[in-house]
Amino acid sequence: MDNSDTNQSGGGAAAPPVTHALAEYALTTAWADLPERVRTEATRAFVNWSGCALGGSNTDTVGTAVRAFAEFAGSGTVPVLGRHERFDAAHAAVLNCLSSAAHTFDDTHLKTITHPTGPVAAAVLAVAHARRVSGVQALLALVVGMEIECRISSAVFGEHAGTDMGWYATGISGGIGAAAAAGILLGLNRSQMISALGLAATQACGLRATHGSMAIALVPALASRNGLTAAFMAAADFTCSDHAIDGRNGLLQVLSPAPSSAAIYQGLGVEFELLQNTYKPYPCGIVIHPAIDACLEIAASASLDPRAIERVDLLVHADALKLCWRKLPDSALQAQVSLFHWAAAALVCGRAGLDHGELACVRDPRIRALQAEIHALADPSMGSDQAKVSVRFKDGSVRSVQVAHATGSIDRPMTDAQLTDKFLLLAGRVLDQRRATDLAEACWNLHRLADVDSFVHLAVGL
Amino acid sequence: MDNSDTNQSGGGAAAPPVTHALAEYALTTAWADLPERVRTEATRAFVNWSGCALGGSNTDTVGTAVRAFAEFAGSGTVPVLGRHERFDAAHAAVLNCLSSAAHTFDDTHLKTITHPTGPVAAAVLAVAHARRVSGVQALLALVVGMEIECRISSAVFGEHAGTDMGWYATGISGGIGAAAAAGILLGLNRSQMISALGLAATQACGLRATHGSMAIALVPALASRNGLTAAFMAAADFTCSDHAIDGRNGLLQVLSPAPSSAAIYQGLGVEFELLQNTYKPYPCGIVIHPAIDACLEIAASASLDPRAIERVDLLVHADALKLCWRKLPDSALQAQVSLFHWAAAALVCGRAGLDHGELACVRDPRIRALQAEIHALADPSMGSDQAKVSVRFKDGSVRSVQVAHATGSIDRPMTDAQLTDKFLLLAGRVLDQRRATDLAEACWNLHRLADVDSFVHLAVGL
Repeated sequence: MDNSDTNQSGGGAAAPPVTHALAEYALTTAWADLPERVRTEATRAFVNWSGCALGGSNTDTVGTAVRAFAEFAGSGTVPVLGRHERFDAAHAAVLNCLSSAAHTFDDTHLKTITHPTGPVAAAVLAVAHARRVSGVQALLALVVGMEIECRISSAVFGEHAGTDMGWYATGISGGIGAAAAAGILLGLNRSQMISALGLAATQACGLRATHGSMAIALVPALASRNGLTAAFMAAADFTCSDHAIDGRNGLLQVLSPAPSSAAIYQGLGVEFELLQNTYKPYPCGIVIHPAIDACLEIAASASLDPRAIERVDLLVHADALKLCWRKLPDSALQAQVSLFHWAAAALVCGRAGLDHGELACVRDPRIRALQAEIHALADPSMGSDQAKVSVRFKDGSVRSVQVAHATGSIDRPMTDAQLTDKFLLLAGRVLDQRRATDLAEACWNLHRLADVDSFVHLAVGL
Repeated sequence: MDNSDTNQSGGGAAAPPVTHALAEYALTTAWADLPERVRTEATRAFVNWSGCALGGSNTDTVGTAVRAFAEFAGSGTVPVLGRHERFDAAHAAVLNCLSSAAHTFDDTHLKTITHPTGPVAAAVLAVAHARRVSGVQALLALVVGMEIECRISSAVFGEHAGTDMGWYATGISGGIGAAAAAGILLGLNRSQMISALGLAATQACGLRATHGSMAIALVPALASRNGLTAAFMAAADFTCSDHAIDGRNGLLQVLSPAPSSAAIYQGLGVEFELLQNTYKPYPCGIVIHPAIDACLEIAASASLDPRAIERVDLLVHADALKLCWRKLPDSALQAQVSLFHWAAAALVCGRAGLDHGELACVRDPRIRALQAEIHALADPSMGSDQAKVSVRFKDGSVRSVQVAHATGSIDRPMTDAQLTDKFLLLAGRVLDQRRATDLAEACWNLHRLADVDSFVHLAVGL
């Protein structure tokens, strides 16, 4: 009988649990050692995330959560982007991440459909209120947390892992990344960091069945809280076993039919999953984006009359239908994850912005009528950033567009200027233009900031 | 393409999601309609749980959590059994449940290895502080919450579900039961209750890899908080989709290779899983108990000298080795889940109480030496409440005992008197004898109480 906790492979000399390597990585990585591209990408991720958090801070989802929290959250002093209330650290993390996810406009690690910045950045800001944290320290914690998060996701949801797509990847890995980031800033020692990672791993959770309701944004938000509180608990010497990720009865074992921690270890500290992170041009499920690109191109070129359309055929990656199969959504939250709504809206309106996810657009009879004519098929030859759209008009003509790489994908990334425009658009929903511009500037220069909490105070709602 | 959220069976007329039936059940069940046996069992469960919570309230695990929570929990007014501090409702629920799990002495729904009372009872007490709740209301909420919890566990972990044993069942289902119970007491309407159940389902989590560390008790504790806060959030109209349990990308789909909600529906309101609940005579993993019974019988009959033992053979249910395989544990927390420690301790000491899980006993050289001679084998013919132990002595004699039903199992339940003794033993660790006796009386008469919060105040530590 095997008396080891790390018997995943079932034989041979057991390697130490992966939490040991992750703790070592988290506690020894220095800002100065990071490649310039990684530093730059961390800043881009923070700009994108801060804009999303500001822009989502006045949604129903966030307002409802604030009301609910009054029943059980204690009084606190931690500010939240775009809001005027103060909270305890745990609920500040929940709310900042909830805001950033509320418009489904946050970033995406494409190969695992993880939205990596939210849980980690929200935990970092919460610690930055409790402890003095510089911009460089915050960015370093963000890099390490996101890296660990994306590597956990890669192990669970990577190409050959075969894990059920019903799991919400950010909820599974986000807390572990947040724990690492918060743990660095709290100055955890090695064994505390190992416990923090385990305490977050045992809280990994989240279902795609939340899609279409406010709860879709709560999954990453709770991951942020879970990681943050795991780090605080570990700092007080609350213990967790070291094999909660890759050991017996650990996270990889229960989630994956073929558990392997290789994707976590390989190239750690040398290769960066953060460089595979992408930013959305459209506020909806990432798997919808290639089809939107194609529809927008068709709409732009054809000065299109939707009534002239007889039929629309979408060839998409399988995940687009696994996650965004809804037709005729009847709320803005359901429309966020409706391939059919966004394809129709893009064709009818020639745009795909925040307005096109609002209820007025969801109920637009032209958009609803067109959805009936849209036929979608999963095509195994399509990459996750690809789609082909064919529109057949009643006059017999056909217009087809094939998208090789969606806007905002790794091969066609959002530029810094596009990210700034997105930030200003989102921040402008809660702040005047002057403050929004100042904040964009502050985000791009986060590495120069002596105290990150001062940034949050700049971004607090009036 | 299927445009339904409830396509679990893949065809035919879809039944409404199971959350609808559960909400109906939660909102229409009346105390007067419950069979007398169910009412009695609810009280027995509460007596057992309260004792465990009091007895665990002064452990390192709980003390460490209290220190950690100061970093992020707000100030609050909710009392916790056996402690003098006050907390917000969410952390009061965490701590009451953490205490009750800290000695691994809480109850067990044997067929799913769920510890059902903790998450639900702790959530009930937290609401009982925020709202006036009578003893009957509390017991009714407890019955409904535990019933839903055990039925979710049955669907996920029941005989044919084939779910990975690495999942910690209480963490998966406990929050859903707690949400139902808290939701009843908060007066949720039907759609709010459906959201509460979904918000809890998407937080289902917990790994057996936490065993052997403080985190083992945190899993049910967080389930309690998750269910409680789900109910508070639903009360504020934070929404979750209705198919988070049995729909597309829902809990059953991601957890079970053969998802079926039959075990949740069948006999709901007529048959009671609560009647399958059991109470532990020994403070350790339930799967160890049959072997302890056998070892104690051998020790009692043989006036045994451990040095005379040559070899011990244990035939046990497979779960005993899947969950409690550890040999030579080096901490009290690891010993909680060590079949070998408890078998050896029972043989050497002739008893298996709280003292025998303490570090002094874990380090006892006689007990450690004997573990080396213990050989355990999973025997497919053994039920989960069965074991066979054979001790071969150096003089060539052999003593074998086969346990058909472990003490405290369904077929050999703990009596009310035994539960009272257990309560007094545990409560006596933090309260004087007079108060402990008064509290035992109050627990047995909970249904007569006008305001449950007054009970909690009686049980607060000095």
